[in-house]
Amino acid sequence: MNETIKQLWERKSVREYTNQPITNEEKEMILQAALQAPTAGNMALYSIIDIQDQKLKDELAIRCDHQPFIAKAPLVLIFLADYQKWFDIFQHYTSDEVKIEESDLLLACEDCMIAAQNAVVAAQSLGIGSCYIGDILENFEANQELLHLPQYAIPLCMVVFGKPTPSQINRKKPTRFALEDMVSVDYYREKTTEETIQMFEKQTGKSGEDLEKYIIAFAKRKFYALFREEMNRSSRAIIQHWIK
Amino acid sequence: MNETIKQLWERKSVREYTNQPITNEEKEMILQAALQAPTAGNMALYSIIDIQDQKLKDELAIRCDHQPFIAKAPLVLIFLADYQKWFDIFQHYTSDEVKIEESDLLLACEDCMIAAQNAVVAAQSLGIGSCYIGDILENFEANQELLHLPQYAIPLCMVVFGKPTPSQINRKKPTRFALEDMVSVDYYREKTTEETIQMFEKQTGKSGEDLEKYIIAFAKRKFYALFREEMNRSSRAIIQHWIK
Repeated sequence: MNETIKQLWERKSVREYTNQPITNEEKEMILQAALQAPTAGNMALYSIIDIQDQKLKDELAIRCDHQPFIAKAPLVLIFLADYQKWFDIFQHYTSDEVKIEESDLLLACEDCMIAAQNAVVAAQSLGIGSCYIGDILENFEANQELLHLPQYAIPLCMVVFGKPTPSQINRKKPTRFALEDMVSVDYYREKTTEETIQMFEKQTGKSGEDLEKYIIAFAKRKFYALFREEMNRSSRAIIQHWIK
Repeated sequence: MNETIKQLWERKSVREYTNQPITNEEKEMILQAALQAPTAGNMALYSIIDIQDQKLKDELAIRCDHQPFIAKAPLVLIFLADYQKWFDIFQHYTSDEVKIEESDLLLACEDCMIAAQNAVVAAQSLGIGSCYIGDILENFEANQELLHLPQYAIPLCMVVFGKPTPSQINRKKPTRFALEDMVSVDYYREKTTEETIQMFEKQTGKSGEDLEKYIIAFAKRKFYALFREEMNRSSRAIIQHWIK
C-alpha cells in the first residue's frame, strides 16, 4: 500500500480538535488541492466559502442541528454547487436564453463533491482531521440569505477541519460494507432479503434480534427523524429553486 | 508538497491507454480505497458496477456520446447513488412507510462522488489514469434496463481507467480558475460583469474578441448542444423517478 492509498484508508471523521491552529500555508494547500480536482469540461461548477467569522460559525453550528464542534473548528469550508459564473458569462456573450437545468445541477453536485474530497484527502495527508456536515442541506432559504447566495449557487456540503485530539486519533474507524456487497460485475445484483440481512450482519457484527433492534434504532435516529424532514423540505426547495 | 498532495495536483484526465492491463491487485486497491471513503452516517449510499463484458463497454461507449476510448479502457466502473439496501432493510425491520425523498438523493449523490474520487486518487497513485464520464447521466431509462437497476440506484458517474500513453502523460493539464475567484471569505462574493470577464481571462489566457469567440464556441459545444438536451431530459427523469 503506497502513502496516498494509506491516507485514503486512514482517513476517518474527526469531531474534536486541539487548540493548534491551521496555518495559512496549510489552508492554502488544502484549497489548492481542491481546485486541482477533476471537473466536467474544466468548468469548475463549484465554489468555496471559507467561514472565518466566529459569529457565522456559531450560527452554522446551531443551524446544522446544534453540533457545537462545528463552531470550534479552526477551518470551516462550505462547498457550493455553483453554475453562476457560466450563467453570467453565457448571458454576457451569447444571444440565446441561458436556461440552467437539471443536468447542470447534477454535474455541479459532482464537481462540488469531487473538489470537497480532494480537500479532505489533502488535509488528511497534512495530519489535519475533517468532518463532512451534510446538515448544511437544511435551512436552504435562511442559509441563502446568511451567505448572500446568488441564484445558481447551492450549499451542498460543509467540511470542518482541525488537528485531531488523541481520543479522536485512537477512535476506531467504522467498519465499511464488504466489497462483494458494494461491487457487482456487469449488472446490478439485486439482493434477496436474506442476502441484504447478511450484508448488514457483516457490517454491524450483529445478527438476529440484535440486528433488528440496531436497525430500528438507526432508522429512528437517521430516517424517521425531525432533521430529515427539514432536510427533505430544504432539498426539495433547492431543486425547485435551481430549475425554476 | 507531500506525496499525496502531489498526486492530487498531477491527476488529469487520461483518455488513451496502453495495452497494459490493470491487474486484479490494482483493481482491488482502487475499489477498496473507494469503499474507505467518508460516507454520511457510515450508510455507504452508493454502489459500484464493474463493467467487464466487452459488449457492455461497446454499448456504453455509444450511449455516452460515441466516445470509443471508453470501450478500450481496461477498467470501467459505474458509480451509482444507491439507497436500495437501506430501503430494503428499513422495509424489513420497521413498520412505518419507507419513503425515500429528495435529501436522500442529494446525500447519496454526495457519498457516490466522494467514493468515486477516492478511486480516482488511488488509481493516480498507482500510475493509472482515469476519466470521469458524466454522459452516463443520459439515457437513464435505457441504462436502467441495460444494468438491471432497482428503484433507488441511479448511475451518477462512470469512471474509466487505464495506463496512460506517453502523449497523455505529456499532455498539459487544463488551467484551473484562480483561487481568489473560487474561494470567498464568510459570504459569497457576487462578481460584476467586469470581474467575471477577468476571471475567465485569467483561466483561458484570452481577452477581448478572442475570449468572446472562445466562450461562444464553448457554449455551442457544451451548453446549446444536443447531448445536453438529452442529459437534461434524463436528469429530470432521474429526479422524478427517485421521488415518485
